[in-house]
Amino acid sequence: MHFTPERMTPLKALRLGIDTHHELIIYLRADCPVCRSEGFSAMSRVLVSSEEHHAIATLNIVTGDLLKKGQIGFSEPAWQRLYLQNDNPIWLSHPKPVQSMSYVRAKVYGHTLDEIAFQSIINDIVDGRYADVHVAAFVTACGDKNLSNDEITSLTHAMIKAGSTIDWNLPLVVDKHCVGGLPGNRTTPIIVPILAACGLTMPKTSSRAITSPAGTADTMETLTNVCLSQDMMRNVVNQQGACLAWGGSMRLSPADDLLIQVERALDIDSEGQLIASVLSKKIAAGATHVLIDIPVGTTAKIRTSEAAEQLAESFKSVAKNLGLSLQVLLSDGSQPVGKGIGPALEAYDILAVLQNRPDTPQDLKKRACTLAGAMLEMIGYVKPGKGLAKALHVLENGEAWRKFQAICHAQGGFHTPPIAPYRYNIVCHTSGTVLSINNRKLAQTAKLAGAPADPEAGVELFVKIGQKVSINQILLTIHAANIGELNYAVEFLEEHKDMILIDHGEETCH
Amino acid sequence: MHFTPERMTPLKALRLGIDTHHELIIYLRADCPVCRSEGFSAMSRVLVSSEEHHAIATLNIVTGDLLKKGQIGFSEPAWQRLYLQNDNPIWLSHPKPVQSMSYVRAKVYGHTLDEIAFQSIINDIVDGRYADVHVAAFVTACGDKNLSNDEITSLTHAMIKAGSTIDWNLPLVVDKHCVGGLPGNRTTPIIVPILAACGLTMPKTSSRAITSPAGTADTMETLTNVCLSQDMMRNVVNQQGACLAWGGSMRLSPADDLLIQVERALDIDSEGQLIASVLSKKIAAGATHVLIDIPVGTTAKIRTSEAAEQLAESFKSVAKNLGLSLQVLLSDGSQPVGKGIGPALEAYDILAVLQNRPDTPQDLKKRACTLAGAMLEMIGYVKPGKGLAKALHVLENGEAWRKFQAICHAQGGFHTPPIAPYRYNIVCHTSGTVLSINNRKLAQTAKLAGAPADPEAGVELFVKIGQKVSINQILLTIHAANIGELNYAVEFLEEHKDMILIDHGEETCH
Repeated sequence: MHFTPERMTPLKALRLGIDTHHELIIYLRADCPVCRSEGFSAMSRVLVSSEEHHAIATLNIVTGDLLKKGQIGFSEPAWQRLYLQNDNPIWLSHPKPVQSMSYVRAKVYGHTLDEIAFQSIINDIVDGRYADVHVAAFVTACGDKNLSNDEITSLTHAMIKAGSTIDWNLPLVVDKHCVGGLPGNRTTPIIVPILAACGLTMPKTSSRAITSPAGTADTMETLTNVCLSQDMMRNVVNQQGACLAWGGSMRLSPADDLLIQVERALDIDSEGQLIASVLSKKIAAGATHVLIDIPVGTTAKIRTSEAAEQLAESFKSVAKNLGLSLQVLLSDGSQPVGKGIGPALEAYDILAVLQNRPDTPQDLKKRACTLAGAMLEMIGYVKPGKGLAKALHVLENGEAWRKFQAICHAQGGFHTPPIAPYRYNIVCHTSGTVLSINNRKLAQTAKLAGAPADPEAGVELFVKIGQKVSINQILLTIHAANIGELNYAVEFLEEHKDMILIDHGEETCH
Repeated sequence: MHFTPERMTPLKALRLGIDTHHELIIYLRADCPVCRSEGFSAMSRVLVSSEEHHAIATLNIVTGDLLKKGQIGFSEPAWQRLYLQNDNPIWLSHPKPVQSMSYVRAKVYGHTLDEIAFQSIINDIVDGRYADVHVAAFVTACGDKNLSNDEITSLTHAMIKAGSTIDWNLPLVVDKHCVGGLPGNRTTPIIVPILAACGLTMPKTSSRAITSPAGTADTMETLTNVCLSQDMMRNVVNQQGACLAWGGSMRLSPADDLLIQVERALDIDSEGQLIASVLSKKIAAGATHVLIDIPVGTTAKIRTSEAAEQLAESFKSVAKNLGLSLQVLLSDGSQPVGKGIGPALEAYDILAVLQNRPDTPQDLKKRACTLAGAMLEMIGYVKPGKGLAKALHVLENGEAWRKFQAICHAQGGFHTPPIAPYRYNIVCHTSGTVLSINNRKLAQTAKLAGAPADPEAGVELFVKIGQKVSINQILLTIHAANIGELNYAVEFLEEHKDMILIDHGEETCH
């Protein structure tokens, strides 16, 4: 009565060379007997098995002559996930219903989830059992402040357990994180060499941009190799005390990488997912002491100091549940930091600070040293109140720059960031004083210009709030890798001239 | 400085013959200059323009030789949406950011949305600006009871405005709806001919199954053509006073069809979306008087009479806002209705009732006549308390059956439902009394057997709660169109033997 899938005639695998990013897609002929025998139709979720591996994929039905009879086509991610070669035998069957979606539904209906529930969801996501719509439902259900601190703790635990962890066998491993939303606020590549030059261990893994024009990993990638295996990372840290690596290649909290892809498409903030994302990565990477920077400003990610205080409390409460030492610093989030917005442009700011050049963006330097100093105070390396001075000292005497170069060298070599071939200057049509700068719209402009996919793309901003500007002065320059994106960014900017507000009420005074 | 997309060299359209259901997918070579000039990458959302049409599609990048230089491939839905022919010139550009997603985010963050917000979201969904993940976020954000009655009213209005509406120029146009969750509860095809035989106007449009093994449209499709254009529907109703059509082909509330595709994948209930879905379809179809059937049972969609009363109140409140006469009946939802679960099996039950055959499922007959009678009382056609008798009379004297045949004939002819080639009997291993029947698990079994995609698939249930059963008596038969699905349903059933609970504590009495 019962036939197992193995008894069916297998299909022959064919690599179609279709890049579907992270979605696993398979292609079957409409007249394929297995469609009929299993009742599959377009967009069915199908369990695909080779002799050694299996995965769940989404089915596309081919009505043309793309495939011969008996063939099954694979998109690139599906091909790679199953480690296939052409003509490998493939069997198809129905995947079991995804039981953990009942927990997602429970969350939508306002119930509280326990650690078993979060572990089931996270494991299913990591195993590829969720299509993007399911991940979107989970992300949305956990959106805003829909998770309690206990739930966030459970989610964090689940995300750690679903991936690899690193144990450094050291009593003190430091890390820092900025909740973002402030364009150009790229302090990490400055803080890491300062702290490493002080002898601390800081195995820093960073993410790529989620909804911003650049993540620390995007910026560092314009300066050195950031795709380190865990073994390579261990070597770099053993040599230099620190690294500046992309976290995504290390399977530290791999669920986070999958969640972030959908969060990016939705652009939905979730306090719980934010905290779980940050802390799961830190704990998996072996951190014992973590400093969190929360910029506060009306157009930053966190808009009020009340919201920042609440987020800080949640961070502290969850960290305590997880046995992690954690401190939070609130910082000024009223305007971008430094000049550059976009991977390479931010890298040039970082180089100016580390090299103590005369054009150093002073705001970026001060923020980085304040945070590095706070960490030195937090672990008792210096007395309270002495951190900033120590950090400035290590930066200004060139130790930090030497350490930065040594880290880049250990990671595969230092290289010069790219420069964009297409540029467009926006000039001031009046004289006056800069009243406000809209972080969100500037970030949007940089993204439309191509950042972070084009590392050389972005915005170079030449003014700060309170600065006096004169007619025809350049306010900002848009950088792009191609004409299409340059146009798109310019159009957006021209539709949003309120991005930089100039008060020219007192023109007569100038 | 600015180049419009029209100045670029167009690509040549190629039909790849890939069925991606409702998702619009385009395929570009990795070395295509427009990818570079516009900064597109795999899974980018792209505005695709032919000389006459445009649509937003998701990009897949082709690294093999599927496409020649200068070609752009289209999936079937994308090809059809743009009304293309091979080699038509195609231009690509960035779609504008989907502004209405900010309303979806606002809903996730707990804000109340107004009609403008809902209209923006619904229009963007109907215009294809949302990828499935965006729709999933909207569905999830509106899940459970997250919409107020005013919000549901706004959403309903928005859904009506985004599609066609029908005006019958009649003071009285009746309709009914069952909120579902009760397998086999297929009363509509019995109620419609009873009320039409009484001279009422009932232009019934029904949906296909969302999460159940059969929708009324799926069942009716096994008996006649249900894909009517609005003109055809008008002809049928003018001739016969009623129709039994699929609503999806009429663009009555087209947003609903798109929302339902994602809701089906997520299986997330939303009170607001349920009410808006039902009422938008009814009002767009021109109904003035609507009866809502809410079955209540521990394994039905609505589990308690409190939840049913709350849902009824929301239905009434929103209907009042919309100027619609509406009544709600709560009914017994403790077990399936009739014998059949699945499109064709339910059709056979309906025929037994309409033809007054000796094997008529009495429960289905009584429910249908109770609802038809309630409508006759609601509109004052009979005095209070006289509705059921009138409905039974029209059914038992054959008028309803003649009317049903006439409607089917007007829709394109009556045909006999298919019969499944593969069956499997589940027998009772003990004697005793049926204690409970799990609607959800039975529905799941019918779906695993292939319903509703295979219309002949499903479950035939031979017992009712309280019925005495003896050893080796057949409890149910699984019907399937192929061996794969039959196996899958049998396996599920064997893992969930508690689907039908038998009390054999008093075996000695039998």
